[in-house]
Amino acid sequence: MSFYVTILGSSSAVPTSKRNLAAQVINHLERLFLIDCGEGTQMQLRKFHIKFTRLNHIFISHLHADHVMGLPGLLSTYSILGRTQPLHIYADPRLESYLSFHQSFFYEQMSFQVVFHPIQTKQSEVIFEDDRLCVSTIPLKHRIPCVGFLFREKPQPRKIKKECIALYKLSIKDIQEIKGGSDFFDGEKWISNEELTFDPPPIRSYAYCSDTRPLKEIIPYIEGVDALYHEATFLEEDTELAKKTYHSTTVDVAQLAVEAKVGKLIIGHFSSRYNHEGKFLEETMKIFPATLMAEDGLRIDIG
Amino acid sequence: MSFYVTILGSSSAVPTSKRNLAAQVINHLERLFLIDCGEGTQMQLRKFHIKFTRLNHIFISHLHADHVMGLPGLLSTYSILGRTQPLHIYADPRLESYLSFHQSFFYEQMSFQVVFHPIQTKQSEVIFEDDRLCVSTIPLKHRIPCVGFLFREKPQPRKIKKECIALYKLSIKDIQEIKGGSDFFDGEKWISNEELTFDPPPIRSYAYCSDTRPLKEIIPYIEGVDALYHEATFLEEDTELAKKTYHSTTVDVAQLAVEAKVGKLIIGHFSSRYNHEGKFLEETMKIFPATLMAEDGLRIDIG
Repeated sequence: MSFYVTILGSSSAVPTSKRNLAAQVINHLERLFLIDCGEGTQMQLRKFHIKFTRLNHIFISHLHADHVMGLPGLLSTYSILGRTQPLHIYADPRLESYLSFHQSFFYEQMSFQVVFHPIQTKQSEVIFEDDRLCVSTIPLKHRIPCVGFLFREKPQPRKIKKECIALYKLSIKDIQEIKGGSDFFDGEKWISNEELTFDPPPIRSYAYCSDTRPLKEIIPYIEGVDALYHEATFLEEDTELAKKTYHSTTVDVAQLAVEAKVGKLIIGHFSSRYNHEGKFLEETMKIFPATLMAEDGLRIDIG
Repeated sequence: MSFYVTILGSSSAVPTSKRNLAAQVINHLERLFLIDCGEGTQMQLRKFHIKFTRLNHIFISHLHADHVMGLPGLLSTYSILGRTQPLHIYADPRLESYLSFHQSFFYEQMSFQVVFHPIQTKQSEVIFEDDRLCVSTIPLKHRIPCVGFLFREKPQPRKIKKECIALYKLSIKDIQEIKGGSDFFDGEKWISNEELTFDPPPIRSYAYCSDTRPLKEIIPYIEGVDALYHEATFLEEDTELAKKTYHSTTVDVAQLAVEAKVGKLIIGHFSSRYNHEGKFLEETMKIFPATLMAEDGLRIDIG
């Protein structure tokens, strides 16, 4: 029942010798979902031994260079390796012209189809959904249109206890009804659904919010998530700079995590201007102790 | 009197966990020159602690994705860091539209000027020259227009022996004439130029040839260079594949190095299809023993 995030890049616009540009990969039940794709993402996928042939969906938060410049190279590699599976990319509609420019500049033909899903950035919308997982957008406020992403598991049916099937001689029809929530009448008495079934596993959720100025308006989307990744580009001392550039500080993010009652907070997207990165964690933990500092290669279990 | 190459990327079209995409940086007298700029080049420059603010000239061999996709990110980083020094880029004329697409897609304004120098690929031409160094192109044959680059030091004037200045009471005019090669008449006898001066240091040269099918025609350009970097994408067993894709094998390159009497050979641009890379070196060294295998981070002194 895997559900975890691997950080591929945790710098802001300029990479450092330790931090690559923005990207992270979600593993949900062994299916991979990529969020953002800064330059070098394909190398990071290899470095951290992630089987990126399992990746079929890429979500792009916004079209700043440090979040998308790894896409053309990743697509090129897929094509050289002979990928045939379609690749779904979800992003601001403008990204399509970026992809098609590279396609026509470099390649005669790609070995696979890119399915482009334009997303609007003003209101939340569901952009991916199957029977196990739902991905929806979180409208953010940056210098250009930008969204976060909420990964929330779908409620699963209650699981029937195997011993009850034999004990009450349940038919397939009975089992379906019990899974749907019904009690069962065994000819003499009613057996409650709780007695016949196990609770489904708790619903797990993860939210990614980068890049953005701090926004109280996102609390309804991120409330109670097991883990929140939020950019903390600046330390508190640079609050004015954060405002000017539509970014957040440690304190902004910690306060948001408190109000939204999230399980844990991961901060990242650190400006390269600071020498002592420990201060990011220090400032955030003072207000919200359950904070982790993103590092390239860090894996965070959700729930 | 530094003159050395640092390999930044040594894979062919697909990077591996150990090998980044094509790029290398030449340090000549503490000035940096970049050859090719595959995705991730800016990270490699940081990783290997290369002061890339000293880089003012970038030479691009050809416009395949694995040789240029690191340019937009490097330029973006320079602009964010506030570079003001112009950056000279030498490449096939089509690269200009690639750069201008990225400029208009991502940036309102760059902090510095890119000076684009179109190069033609059919005949050799001098593309950079100052009083210490000359860079000229080497026409190659790949699937698309492609050139190599020859870095050759300029002949330096003989250096006058300090003790001779005092001994013969040489005037500034005398010194200039002696530096120009004249003998000196001290009123009684002629003193030969050799006696008055030191030999200048030997002229050093480096050639970069990637990507290309093996070409005897390049021998006049690379003959006697101190070091030749040549792609060896395939092992001998894949000669047919090399021909089909306009690449070279170990044996092709070793034979070329023998004929051109180069000082040492560096092979690189290895296909990711092979498990045992040692075979590249083995096959090449059988024919040309003074061979090195490119590795990311490897520094090779020239001359």
